Amino acid sequence: MSTDAALRARAAKVIPGGMWGHLNAAKLPEGYPQFFARGEGGHVWDVDGNRYVDLMCSWGPIILGHHDPVVEAAARRQADLGDCLNGPGPVLVELAERLVERIPAADWAMFMKNGTDATTACVTIARAATGRGTILLANGSYHGAAPWCTPVPAGTRPEDRANQGRFDYNDVASLTAAADAAGSDLAGIIITAFRHDNVVDQELPSREFAEAARRICDTRGAALILDDVRAGFRLHPGGSWEGLGVRPDLSAWSKAIANGHALAAVTGRDSLREAAASVFVTGSFWCSAVSMAAAVATLEELERRDVVGQLERLGLMLREGLAERARGFNIGLRQSGPVSMPLFLFEGDQEFRAGRAFCAAALKAGAYLHPRHNMFLCAAHTEADIALVLDAAEAGFRALAA
Amino acid sequence: MSTDAALRARAAKVIPGGMWGHLNAAKLPEGYPQFFARGEGGHVWDVDGNRYVDLMCSWGPIILGHHDPVVEAAARRQADLGDCLNGPGPVLVELAERLVERIPAADWAMFMKNGTDATTACVTIARAATGRGTILLANGSYHGAAPWCTPVPAGTRPEDRANQGRFDYNDVASLTAAADAAGSDLAGIIITAFRHDNVVDQELPSREFAEAARRICDTRGAALILDDVRAGFRLHPGGSWEGLGVRPDLSAWSKAIANGHALAAVTGRDSLREAAASVFVTGSFWCSAVSMAAAVATLEELERRDVVGQLERLGLMLREGLAERARGFNIGLRQSGPVSMPLFLFEGDQEFRAGRAFCAAALKAGAYLHPRHNMFLCAAHTEADIALVLDAAEAGFRALAA
Repeated sequence: MSTDAALRARAAKVIPGGMWGHLNAAKLPEGYPQFFARGEGGHVWDVDGNRYVDLMCSWGPIILGHHDPVVEAAARRQADLGDCLNGPGPVLVELAERLVERIPAADWAMFMKNGTDATTACVTIARAATGRGTILLANGSYHGAAPWCTPVPAGTRPEDRANQGRFDYNDVASLTAAADAAGSDLAGIIITAFRHDNVVDQELPSREFAEAARRICDTRGAALILDDVRAGFRLHPGGSWEGLGVRPDLSAWSKAIANGHALAAVTGRDSLREAAASVFVTGSFWCSAVSMAAAVATLEELERRDVVGQLERLGLMLREGLAERARGFNIGLRQSGPVSMPLFLFEGDQEFRAGRAFCAAALKAGAYLHPRHNMFLCAAHTEADIALVLDAAEAGFRALAA
Repeated sequence: MSTDAALRARAAKVIPGGMWGHLNAAKLPEGYPQFFARGEGGHVWDVDGNRYVDLMCSWGPIILGHHDPVVEAAARRQADLGDCLNGPGPVLVELAERLVERIPAADWAMFMKNGTDATTACVTIARAATGRGTILLANGSYHGAAPWCTPVPAGTRPEDRANQGRFDYNDVASLTAAADAAGSDLAGIIITAFRHDNVVDQELPSREFAEAARRICDTRGAALILDDVRAGFRLHPGGSWEGLGVRPDLSAWSKAIANGHALAAVTGRDSLREAAASVFVTGSFWCSAVSMAAAVATLEELERRDVVGQLERLGLMLREGLAERARGFNIGLRQSGPVSMPLFLFEGDQEFRAGRAFCAAALKAGAYLHPRHNMFLCAAHTEADIALVLDAAEAGFRALAA
């Protein structure tokens, strides 16, 4: 029995369903490990000693690479002083200042642990600021796993999703209609940095859509909330909509902010500062200094290494290489979203059989890909890693063609 | 200007209100620092180099002492392998097994980051298990800072607190009446380990009350949820109601579980296992292995050092010493709750003026106390530390008497 299988058998006894949440490997193709032993740079090792080029990057948090030496040294220096104390360390102020410097839409910052903490705080702040209730969300968008936003309704109640309106991503008419329906109760609009809904092609936001969201919030006195939890720092160092020239009132951050250390943040504009100070959101570990020291180091390294540019170059190499190989096999491969956060889906593959067979073969060849979820590149990936992924993909295409 | 004042001035620019949540020092007496430099054992140092005997223990997480060498060594060993990966490490299984071994009411475990994550998951699991909506909560109890439970309603909506009934802690008649009012919609009852509401005397649960809660849940098919986030591991190694002989269906844990590392947990009985597997609760850092390695080490050390017994001995020394000194000054000091989680309030001190003056004087004499919130002892406190706190308290009583 493999070590992974032995651990799964033990887990089945003491963990409901053997594993919970998005890290449950039960729905991944045969051969995917549930348990991991370690990570280094752009690679991870499972508990049976198999090494993979890691294209999930821990589902987003790893942006510089596993065990980044600069980040880990900063974390260790802070850990030698203290982590969770009776109040924050000086690093809280330093981190907030860095974010305000680097994010044009940020006049202030607050910190949490989960992306869901940050999106929930944004919604709460928008409601406190406006004294209104309705928040608009795009159909299919993921904003976290609290009762108000979890995609699986088990154990939630209809009231958890009260005070919400829905629109379609990138559809100005449906957004306008939802805002009209909310009328004078419109507190805010929350939008993911790009459309990265589960199991459908990704879509970048159109400039028209982003500008319409901004205009609707401006004319109706509502707050525009950018959910940058998943994409933050991978597309633009100052916020994912900077390239569009549209600035949110509130932004939710997490995932990559501290290169794997548990941290989330809300940043906002001065107009929302008083409301942010009025709400009571808190947690026992929200001021833990080690994650903040890791975040300061991560932000510095992102800039110093031009990580956005580097991820784009690597991502383009991957995208073009995959397209070329798919054409060679005459396979209909759809690639969507930013090149640094790629999603591969196969034409006509409603049940993901092709995707699963492709990924299972690529896994055996040393590339850890995902058959349905967007993936993530990191700055520790090398051209040799991308070449290995392309060879692994070739094995995947060969399996499909067979 | 002190370093603390300089940091506060910088923070005022980039953090709403200068600080948010329960770690905001603005409401503490003059002289209390906002920012901390480090911790070691039972002591903390503020950013101006003042050392205090720490009776807040980071508001609960520190149970063995700051920088516990065994816990930190375990955390470092895991950090050298990996923390946040594409799935959990083997330590997830080890930790779940330990909890199931040591907690009689636990057949399984799941892990999160915040105490609020754990209480929210318990409520969600109870609703999923029963298919019903109503959760009963005690008036004044703190279960976290999400919209359904935050004590400050700013930015929340009435619907966030729908499907809730209220009762008074330790009042069987009011609990029964609330259960009757919920009728066939009763999904669960959530109760803190003891009554540790804000700014009122603490109260241990009566056996009659705990047994009534258990009986109501049994006869009506609802889930009994013990919110052991704050008290967990300080009163009994197997759950805070073990001494009462009453076992919950679900327990929420956080704070002390990993001696300051960010972690929370839900444990539950087999009857709730399927429901726990059916809900979708997750977070980017919920499987971070370092916090789990810290938790495994913490649980081992709690047992090896008989921490519950040690905290009781130290707490009793503190309580008796304070009572004796208060009598000497003829001051009406009310001490309540478990001796290891003490709360001091002064007779007739509605505006906490006496409490504030007392704490301010004690702080100058080197003891970090809290004028309104329960405090926490840790296993690194020594008899000499308690003696120092008693001397500092003497200075506090003297200030009051003057």
